[in-house]
Amino acid sequence: MKAKIITIGDEILIGQIVDTNATFIAQELNKIGVSVVEMLSIQDHTQEILKALLQAQDTVDIVLITGGLGPTKDDITKAAICTYFKDTLVENAAVLAHIKGLFEKFIITKMNDSNLTQAQLPSKALALHNAYGTASGMWLKQGNTVFVSMPGVPFEMKALMKEQVIPKIVAEFERPYIIHKTIQTYGVGESAIAADIADWETALPPHIKLAYLPSLGKVRLRISAKGLDKELLEKEVEDQLNILLPILGSIVYGFETSEVLEVVVAKMLTDKKRTLALAESCTGGALAAVFTAIPGASTYFKGAVVAYETQQKIKVLGVSESLIATHSVVSEEVAIAMATGIQRLMETDFAVATTGNAGPLKGDSGAAVGTVCIAIASPSEVYAQTFSMGNHRERIVQKALNKALELLQKEIVKF
Amino acid sequence: MKAKIITIGDEILIGQIVDTNATFIAQELNKIGVSVVEMLSIQDHTQEILKALLQAQDTVDIVLITGGLGPTKDDITKAAICTYFKDTLVENAAVLAHIKGLFEKFIITKMNDSNLTQAQLPSKALALHNAYGTASGMWLKQGNTVFVSMPGVPFEMKALMKEQVIPKIVAEFERPYIIHKTIQTYGVGESAIAADIADWETALPPHIKLAYLPSLGKVRLRISAKGLDKELLEKEVEDQLNILLPILGSIVYGFETSEVLEVVVAKMLTDKKRTLALAESCTGGALAAVFTAIPGASTYFKGAVVAYETQQKIKVLGVSESLIATHSVVSEEVAIAMATGIQRLMETDFAVATTGNAGPLKGDSGAAVGTVCIAIASPSEVYAQTFSMGNHRERIVQKALNKALELLQKEIVKF
Repeated sequence: MKAKIITIGDEILIGQIVDTNATFIAQELNKIGVSVVEMLSIQDHTQEILKALLQAQDTVDIVLITGGLGPTKDDITKAAICTYFKDTLVENAAVLAHIKGLFEKFIITKMNDSNLTQAQLPSKALALHNAYGTASGMWLKQGNTVFVSMPGVPFEMKALMKEQVIPKIVAEFERPYIIHKTIQTYGVGESAIAADIADWETALPPHIKLAYLPSLGKVRLRISAKGLDKELLEKEVEDQLNILLPILGSIVYGFETSEVLEVVVAKMLTDKKRTLALAESCTGGALAAVFTAIPGASTYFKGAVVAYETQQKIKVLGVSESLIATHSVVSEEVAIAMATGIQRLMETDFAVATTGNAGPLKGDSGAAVGTVCIAIASPSEVYAQTFSMGNHRERIVQKALNKALELLQKEIVKF
Repeated sequence: MKAKIITIGDEILIGQIVDTNATFIAQELNKIGVSVVEMLSIQDHTQEILKALLQAQDTVDIVLITGGLGPTKDDITKAAICTYFKDTLVENAAVLAHIKGLFEKFIITKMNDSNLTQAQLPSKALALHNAYGTASGMWLKQGNTVFVSMPGVPFEMKALMKEQVIPKIVAEFERPYIIHKTIQTYGVGESAIAADIADWETALPPHIKLAYLPSLGKVRLRISAKGLDKELLEKEVEDQLNILLPILGSIVYGFETSEVLEVVVAKMLTDKKRTLALAESCTGGALAAVFTAIPGASTYFKGAVVAYETQQKIKVLGVSESLIATHSVVSEEVAIAMATGIQRLMETDFAVATTGNAGPLKGDSGAAVGTVCIAIASPSEVYAQTFSMGNHRERIVQKALNKALELLQKEIVKF
């Protein structure tokens, strides 16, 4: 079963927003074995929408459309759908009642005419209930293709996909199975891994594919297998993993897309009933944000001090002034003092400290842009390492986060 | 001048990565007056690539392609381009020397055959220098369309766009002007704004367009004007703004895409030579990360305490135990004590504190999921407000950040 995703909106094409809607829709379709063969983003123009619908017609089983269903004048999707299906708009009583209810309960501003027109849908469309908004979803069929239209507001679209669209696809279509297995690695680059596993990769059967997904300091490997017999597929992927994993060795730290490094670390701390605190300088709170974004963080995460100003390292973390004067604020010695300082202050088992220069200017320390010292304190020891992480502020912080997580994970494993 | 962007990669179509490359390319093209009429993401299959190239041929002036130029076997873009242009691969001496140089200087792992094949390019292609990587960019022309192919690694592609592709487009094509003006607003919803400015919007000439870009608690309005006379366009947009801004009134806090709320606040603090510290609980370091992501943060940002555990609010921020016992940890009283605590500890002019329940569980405080108290301390006063921010962890934190920035901005304005 094949799908195409069409996202509508000038704001996407001028690069003002990133199209995360298409990504979410693709993820949901993949889970139920629907292959997305194309994602298309087009302008908010009637002619462009009509052209895209016609091009998709009968080339895929289902077309998922988002955007252009809001109450304002720049939204023309519904009218274009009406034209394409040679249909007329009729008022949908259930949708109207829902819109009125939303305004009564949740919306401070007064309902106006543009909100009322949102209750009008093409007569051939089945309305899909949008629990969180006033723009109804729509399900229409023509020839061999189903067209689903959803609003572009991400959280409304997400609820519609999960609660309405996916259950309806599952009920109405037969689908093959797609199994994905992700292997998370750190510390070695893409081409070095490729060289190591070349023989294994060449021997893969055609229905099993491998992809490399490199990011800063990490490479994800994704194995995808597609077929009709789910159990057989699972066994085949398992067999391939049994050959692959010994070749990869200790660079593997996790599996599956959701097992990003921070989730692995969070789970280890939770399972081992150990606690964590952070002393951040160059990472500026971003490492704390990484941990607290994961539900359940309060089980192991006590807190952090973002000691951005040098004075705060001295005052709040207890780093000695003479240590800073001797070694400079960006040094392994200061990183270690920050880590032991926060470990003592918040009484935790583990602590991580970062100090460095993320640029763009050289700053007080005199350290080159990109220099980052990371210290890891465990219940029995503390150490620090210095890294050179390029000269791009955002990438320096991101690399520092990944490296800190990698070093912390390697330390927690020992306890 | 019209452009189409094609991004290649199964990882996009299964939703494993968000396609930020297309967004970046669109932004860069827009700045030089090139209209992106379509973005297309396709699978890493030769047939799909050939189909996409053929479909784009002669419908636009330029096609920008990214992805599928890496050293590993799942990258087939270069071969597909060869087929499409009926061309053969030849070794490019300059590219080969560059690849060897990169390995000598920067890359720890050893060069292998797959790296060497990266020096082979279609004979009809002009090589575009990729300063940061081993996959060369390519510029080819057929019929009325230029095809540009770039690697998918974002920072390599970005440098290629800025240093090679954009200058070459500017040199070789004549283009109309596109002017975008963004108005950043907070506090009022999309349809209420639309109702207020309906008369103005209806009277807009056809070459000037308005778009609404709503996000959590904020709406961006984007005016776009297109034409051949740059000065006239600028004057027309200016004239429209002079009518629009008085209608919008005090909900406007900034202009232009880059003037997001945190940048406005950072600039105000820098200009007024005022300092800031944060005491974060439910926002968990994310507010500190927002500020420290902006270059120059050290001018005004002293630091933050992420007091995630209740004990840290008492110990590090000096919130009294009895205050927490009386009002609970999620209360305006505790938020105020946190704000004044960090203001005192780090000796700053302004301080922001957040305490709340981001869910998914109710937690110690007993506060409903979504309850967030935000306190703002200025040199002369301190106050707190309580908000109900839904029941989605990520959205609660994001809404809390936006609201904290809004309240802080309104307070700084007074000084």
